[in-house]
Amino acid sequence: MINVEKAQLEKLNQSMQHVMRVARTHVLSKMGVQLTVAEKTSRRDLVTNVDHSNEDFLVQQIRQLDADAHILAEEGRGDQVKTMRGHVWIVDPIDGTMNFVHQRNHFAMMVGYYVDGQPTLGYIYDVMADKLYAGGPEVGVTLNGQPLAAPADLDLADGLFGASAPLLINDRFNMQTVIATSLGARILGSAGVQIGQVLAGELVGYLSYLRPWDFAAGRVLAESLGLVMTQVDGTPVNMLSSGAVLVATKRAQRAVLAIVK
Amino acid sequence: MINVEKAQLEKLNQSMQHVMRVARTHVLSKMGVQLTVAEKTSRRDLVTNVDHSNEDFLVQQIRQLDADAHILAEEGRGDQVKTMRGHVWIVDPIDGTMNFVHQRNHFAMMVGYYVDGQPTLGYIYDVMADKLYAGGPEVGVTLNGQPLAAPADLDLADGLFGASAPLLINDRFNMQTVIATSLGARILGSAGVQIGQVLAGELVGYLSYLRPWDFAAGRVLAESLGLVMTQVDGTPVNMLSSGAVLVATKRAQRAVLAIVK
Repeated sequence: MINVEKAQLEKLNQSMQHVMRVARTHVLSKMGVQLTVAEKTSRRDLVTNVDHSNEDFLVQQIRQLDADAHILAEEGRGDQVKTMRGHVWIVDPIDGTMNFVHQRNHFAMMVGYYVDGQPTLGYIYDVMADKLYAGGPEVGVTLNGQPLAAPADLDLADGLFGASAPLLINDRFNMQTVIATSLGARILGSAGVQIGQVLAGELVGYLSYLRPWDFAAGRVLAESLGLVMTQVDGTPVNMLSSGAVLVATKRAQRAVLAIVK
Repeated sequence: MINVEKAQLEKLNQSMQHVMRVARTHVLSKMGVQLTVAEKTSRRDLVTNVDHSNEDFLVQQIRQLDADAHILAEEGRGDQVKTMRGHVWIVDPIDGTMNFVHQRNHFAMMVGYYVDGQPTLGYIYDVMADKLYAGGPEVGVTLNGQPLAAPADLDLADGLFGASAPLLINDRFNMQTVIATSLGARILGSAGVQIGQVLAGELVGYLSYLRPWDFAAGRVLAESLGLVMTQVDGTPVNMLSSGAVLVATKRAQRAVLAIVK
């Protein structure tokens, strides 16, 4: 946090919340017309014209706010980011594109901001529920501008757990035992929406195979609220790599790590 | 429909929507205070003071609207209903009680009305999303008072599918192949919320082990919109029995029935 004073951070946080709200209005206006949908790697890996236009908008806005920004963005409109040194912004313009296309609901936009590798600001916007989680360790976390209380440190056995269907079906990492220990599985198909539920205390944890833009914003917000995010073996997440990532209360994390294999 | 004229039905439909909205305000006001939670058959089968008070309210209101009502209600505040003859109302005051208790979100209230066994009126209220699905075959289906269009008759391969975690984990009815054929699984833990998603076209189908109050309202609404609800073997649902119930588009139903075993 050497180069960024708290007052600047507060101002940046307000500006970024405004950017996210404007981005939402753009996305909503485009949802009324026909989407252009393309498959990336499979019929389950989609990209639309709205992913592209929203990424363009977010990248442009971030560059206006931070001349030193290095931007890692899902659809490739940002920079080639190979190090977390300096100001790194990680952008997911539409998280849960499958839901966006087939449900017009249950998707999120996410932005994470790291300074020399330190989680600094994060934004998760559950677009249709109109829930914007925003903030960081220095400025605090808000939901739609109101301070968000840290969720209770519940154990795995005392809460619902967010899963991904492929991990659950294939029992990867002993996921079926994780679920059997919890009060039940919930699968929504959007990392942003489900990490938002962990922040809100609706889930005690969430485990899925994630890419950097799926978890960068969530890590900032989760750690600011006393939650933990690690790889599934308990080691720190690598912000520039994909992997199985667990975000959870401290107690639920310990319980999950004792079960996974 | 011998004893109920259309004008009466329209009036009853308006009255019941009002009842549901009043019930919602009661539930919301009680959520701010401590819930009293009891286990019914297990730690995953809960009942709260709000289930009881809301059932009392709904049963009382239905009796005021229909002197001939026979009421089957989840928590037992209604009548002993052993036949579908006459006016039968089927009530679930809080569907997804686990979500209600642990998420304060993602739960529904449901009422279904049958006349001599014929689906006549149905209500699914996703309380926190404030989405009230209402109506029936004679009066049409509305979402928050606006006409709801029938969802597109999509095939299983072209949509997301609503599942229950126990059926998916244990591969009951070949559920894992159903999911693999679809675009993906979604698990929300409330029949009301997930049937609402099928009505809205967000899911092409939903399969779960359900009790009469879980599917009575949904059957009325689904059939009114050209969707189908049957047992998992394709035979008609029995309104007074529990079982594995499938609600889906016509095309998705055919695909699922060809997979289940």
